Amino acid sequence: MNLRIYMDYNATAPLLGRAQGVMISAMSELGNPSSVHQEGQKARRIVNLARDQVAQLSGGQSAHVTFTSGATEAASHLLTPNYKMGRSALKISKLYISAVEHPCVLSGGRFDKDDIVILPTDVNGLIDLAALEAELVNHDDTLGLAMLALQAVNNETGVIQPIAKAIKIAQTHKAITVIDAVQAFGKIPYDIEDIGADFTFMSAHKIGGPKGVGAIVSRGEVLMPEPLINGGGHEKGHRAGTENIIGIAGFGAACVQAHENLAHSLALGQKRDDLEAQMFEITSDLVIHGGAVERIPNTVCFTLPGMKSETLQIAFDMEGVAASSGSACSSGKVGESHVLVAMGTDANIGALRVSIGVETSDEDLASFLKAFEKINLRRIKQIRKPQNDDGVAA
Amino acid sequence: MNLRIYMDYNATAPLLGRAQGVMISAMSELGNPSSVHQEGQKARRIVNLARDQVAQLSGGQSAHVTFTSGATEAASHLLTPNYKMGRSALKISKLYISAVEHPCVLSGGRFDKDDIVILPTDVNGLIDLAALEAELVNHDDTLGLAMLALQAVNNETGVIQPIAKAIKIAQTHKAITVIDAVQAFGKIPYDIEDIGADFTFMSAHKIGGPKGVGAIVSRGEVLMPEPLINGGGHEKGHRAGTENIIGIAGFGAACVQAHENLAHSLALGQKRDDLEAQMFEITSDLVIHGGAVERIPNTVCFTLPGMKSETLQIAFDMEGVAASSGSACSSGKVGESHVLVAMGTDANIGALRVSIGVETSDEDLASFLKAFEKINLRRIKQIRKPQNDDGVAA
Repeated sequence: MNLRIYMDYNATAPLLGRAQGVMISAMSELGNPSSVHQEGQKARRIVNLARDQVAQLSGGQSAHVTFTSGATEAASHLLTPNYKMGRSALKISKLYISAVEHPCVLSGGRFDKDDIVILPTDVNGLIDLAALEAELVNHDDTLGLAMLALQAVNNETGVIQPIAKAIKIAQTHKAITVIDAVQAFGKIPYDIEDIGADFTFMSAHKIGGPKGVGAIVSRGEVLMPEPLINGGGHEKGHRAGTENIIGIAGFGAACVQAHENLAHSLALGQKRDDLEAQMFEITSDLVIHGGAVERIPNTVCFTLPGMKSETLQIAFDMEGVAASSGSACSSGKVGESHVLVAMGTDANIGALRVSIGVETSDEDLASFLKAFEKINLRRIKQIRKPQNDDGVAA
Repeated sequence: MNLRIYMDYNATAPLLGRAQGVMISAMSELGNPSSVHQEGQKARRIVNLARDQVAQLSGGQSAHVTFTSGATEAASHLLTPNYKMGRSALKISKLYISAVEHPCVLSGGRFDKDDIVILPTDVNGLIDLAALEAELVNHDDTLGLAMLALQAVNNETGVIQPIAKAIKIAQTHKAITVIDAVQAFGKIPYDIEDIGADFTFMSAHKIGGPKGVGAIVSRGEVLMPEPLINGGGHEKGHRAGTENIIGIAGFGAACVQAHENLAHSLALGQKRDDLEAQMFEITSDLVIHGGAVERIPNTVCFTLPGMKSETLQIAFDMEGVAASSGSACSSGKVGESHVLVAMGTDANIGALRVSIGVETSDEDLASFLKAFEKINLRRIKQIRKPQNDDGVAA
């Protein structure tokens, strides 16, 4: 029997059993949470329990959690020049982001393209803090405040950004701060009060909740963006539309599980390091992207010189290993990774992202290594033959 | 045993067994539909099957279905001054809507408040077509095209709007047309080619699918709004964000079931008429809103003179009947119904919306009538006593 090995947790994690349980249970709730009758109020309680659970894992307050249809909506919602401070309009004139952000932040939300400043990173993909400081020193507050939007963790490499330092610089210059915590939340400790950013957003399906659910956690209720989705008074008027009860219930349950599993999640770091050491033993010309700096424990982004991303991914898929070339969100187009390009890597280089979870077994890792060895052997043979442009032996 | 009777289908319909089944089955799919590996492609197939099923029920093409997080997002997405015709920008300068639209359309999406023209309705809540014509005759195309957004069916009264006539008028004046089919889709025949509007949007949870899922069905792919949610290339670049696979699967299944049930749904009309006749037998001063015109078969919106909406709703809730005062979406604030106000009804009048589904049994209707009789008797006694402002006997 040829079992498949799923190593693409950063694209989406398998739905946790606990999340499935509460989702199935929520299916029998009849009401619309906006309805005042008993059926409506039962549905309302499901949403509010999940709100508590998201708040708990993020170190925030229940009252400051706004549910969205995912991290992408959250980014489009938060990245806008139009905020309110209480009832007063607050204008933001420029958005500062790093070059390695996820496409949902890189798109700049509701900002004009001309008002987005993209900051460079170093070879490890870490945001250039000196460049951030230099830009913010020159920011003209009379036209509107600055906004910094930064990922806590890069989705392709797993590299942990120096968000605390970046936020400190931003706040010195009165910038509004937004953290994309999608790949950090539930995998490493993340406390919105410690971090200090005005807004953090996260996604359910990266931590074993369902796809299509996300949340924004703010540090207060005074400063809020103009809503993206308008209509009824749901989510205190910040986000209209009948709530995805079943999905939200699953998100809450996944937060509880992630909280309980945090030590296990962190322990993946040792397994990952062992895996990389064994990969290096198989071939010493292996390149680990971001390997020189701090990363979340579950991610390996590597290059086997001479092999393109697509070739690598298809080869692993055929060996039964599901892994990813670049971000799943842009993988419709087979092309270069903007993350690796920002890190100064050759645009034509191929990289594969392998990302695991607490459910990943030692047998899975051993099977991955076997596939890696096999694919590497094929590569070596090909390197010794004349090649065509596709990196395939002619 | 005191069983509850759910008569608030227009707020949200109970999740169908068939939808639950496919949702539970979709829970075991591992992949992100944007991933190219086998797991991703299996998830992709679930989304595409549901796309076919939504297209089937709407008379549209699969390729023209865009999934959203619900009808409210769909409205915010479609109601924008910024469209594309192929690669060219197309400006829309004014949005024309009726006064009885759902809050998601009434909010005007991304239009400035100054660019929204609200058209009156008659006493039955039907849009004033002469007023529409008069407004569009005066529309200045040099500033941008007109857009008409209109509901197919009013959510509070069930009144069916003359959308075919309105669309014809709009198209004579080159207006872009958007139909909110939320309360029509799956309840009465709705075919986007017959209707002829450029865009139609609908919601899963009104037809027995899950909450938090909706769709836009367009009649082509050339004319499309600027995306509301930006990021990855999902939904052909029209709507970024990892798809709500489980919810989308449930939506598709609900469409299949609604298609099969359509004759049953239409047969509810006779039950509704019988119910209203029996209510009139109990009290002849009953007022049925929109009763003089064509309505969808499942809705009764009535007033018992002297009783406020909240009082009515709470009285029925305590008798075990879940019904609604006005739209669930704005029911956070207990206040007047903008729909009844637009129909020229006294703003202080109380109305209750009772909406049923094919699962509603004759016993449910009999129990409702018993509660109605009991509440009406209490009302009669109160009318004979001096009252305070709350409509409660002092």
